[in-house]
Amino acid sequence: MKSKNHIPTLNTVLSPSLLHLYDISNSIVVIIDILRATSTIATALFNGAKEIIPVESVAECIKLGRQIDVITAGERDGQIAEGLQYGNTPFQYDAEFIKGKTLVLTTTNGTKLLHMALKANAKGIITGSFCNLSAVCDYLSNQNKNVMLACAGWKNRINIEDSLFAGAVINRIKNNFEVNCDASQISETLYLEAKEDPFTFLKEKNASHYHRLMRFGLEKDIRYCLSEDSANILSIFVNGRLVAS
Amino acid sequence: MKSKNHIPTLNTVLSPSLLHLYDISNSIVVIIDILRATSTIATALFNGAKEIIPVESVAECIKLGRQIDVITAGERDGQIAEGLQYGNTPFQYDAEFIKGKTLVLTTTNGTKLLHMALKANAKGIITGSFCNLSAVCDYLSNQNKNVMLACAGWKNRINIEDSLFAGAVINRIKNNFEVNCDASQISETLYLEAKEDPFTFLKEKNASHYHRLMRFGLEKDIRYCLSEDSANILSIFVNGRLVAS
Repeated sequence: MKSKNHIPTLNTVLSPSLLHLYDISNSIVVIIDILRATSTIATALFNGAKEIIPVESVAECIKLGRQIDVITAGERDGQIAEGLQYGNTPFQYDAEFIKGKTLVLTTTNGTKLLHMALKANAKGIITGSFCNLSAVCDYLSNQNKNVMLACAGWKNRINIEDSLFAGAVINRIKNNFEVNCDASQISETLYLEAKEDPFTFLKEKNASHYHRLMRFGLEKDIRYCLSEDSANILSIFVNGRLVAS
Repeated sequence: MKSKNHIPTLNTVLSPSLLHLYDISNSIVVIIDILRATSTIATALFNGAKEIIPVESVAECIKLGRQIDVITAGERDGQIAEGLQYGNTPFQYDAEFIKGKTLVLTTTNGTKLLHMALKANAKGIITGSFCNLSAVCDYLSNQNKNVMLACAGWKNRINIEDSLFAGAVINRIKNNFEVNCDASQISETLYLEAKEDPFTFLKEKNASHYHRLMRFGLEKDIRYCLSEDSANILSIFVNGRLVAS
């Protein structure tokens, strides 16, 4: 039994390559892939998607698409993956398009990390983005369980935008947790620098994925993915599916 | 042949677990372990040590100590390792003690990372600390070669103080390099926040290794390891040894 004074821990990994350093079997893991997987997931669920099935590979995505009546979507290296119907832009998933439907999604970083957390026996998995920041923070604050903020980064390299989101969560909920983790402190420091204008911060800091998406003409996506609570719904992983809660 | 306009790259890894993501065979790797291995190395060389042999294990350190007339030193988990003569405090290595001598050193994080860089065929290896910040920056600026700033962290977890030092180097020399690396930007942002008073920054940010060393009564060590150019000498790895240059 937990004592009444039990204070859960909060840790952050800035890259999937660091997840194995922690035992997450007793933690709720927040999957963070701001540009754009977890922003798109929040948006699709907010707009009434029935469920999202995150899969690791494009092949798996195509295979599932043949078996059941679903929308298959995904990207590799920031663009729609060959063989899939749709990409990873949140603007695709308005209510008219996605309401009541099942979305099967694979992305370069975010969906891979979710499967890593699953294999490492995470106690619970949710997805986090600025689009559903408040829903994520409220949920974590109310659970009284350990938290691992897991940044997807870019092919295991650390990125600014995922670290910023980790910092935003920490800044809001740190008083409910024992935060004895330098990566968390670094993330919060970064967020406090950036919070007034995260878009300009990414631009001035020459963020690598900012540039990658800008080259594809996706400024609108970036601005949306940095806006707080624009699709404020909890996205929780249950029985192989992300569903709204 | 390099063109006259060749601009070398600068990257940063905030943990040894991320080093494998990069090809460092064409880079000078800067090993960073601020509290305290690389600060101690700079200090010992500055005070006239003939050479420092970094080894991976305590057993190797003891074995070498039996074979040749050397000082064996090292720590595990912040304290002198069993079987070794001396620890990892820079104050041990004043001129009277270390001048002309060979030091064989093993530490929890820094010497391990050096061997990782060696196995990954780094083009060159130096060690960096605030104690020799200017010597490191001058060397890197003059080489016109790619640079990898490699933070030792704590048992592969990211720490604040090593990230701060990476940020200090970037802040000084970034104009000579192509810095297309989010971890570098994060480090520099952190450094700019901390530079007026890094000791208080570590304290206020609840830095994990700050607390570990403070518990051992090592405030003096921490303050020294954060002081710029207190042992301003280049420490370069040549033929299995770190020597002053």
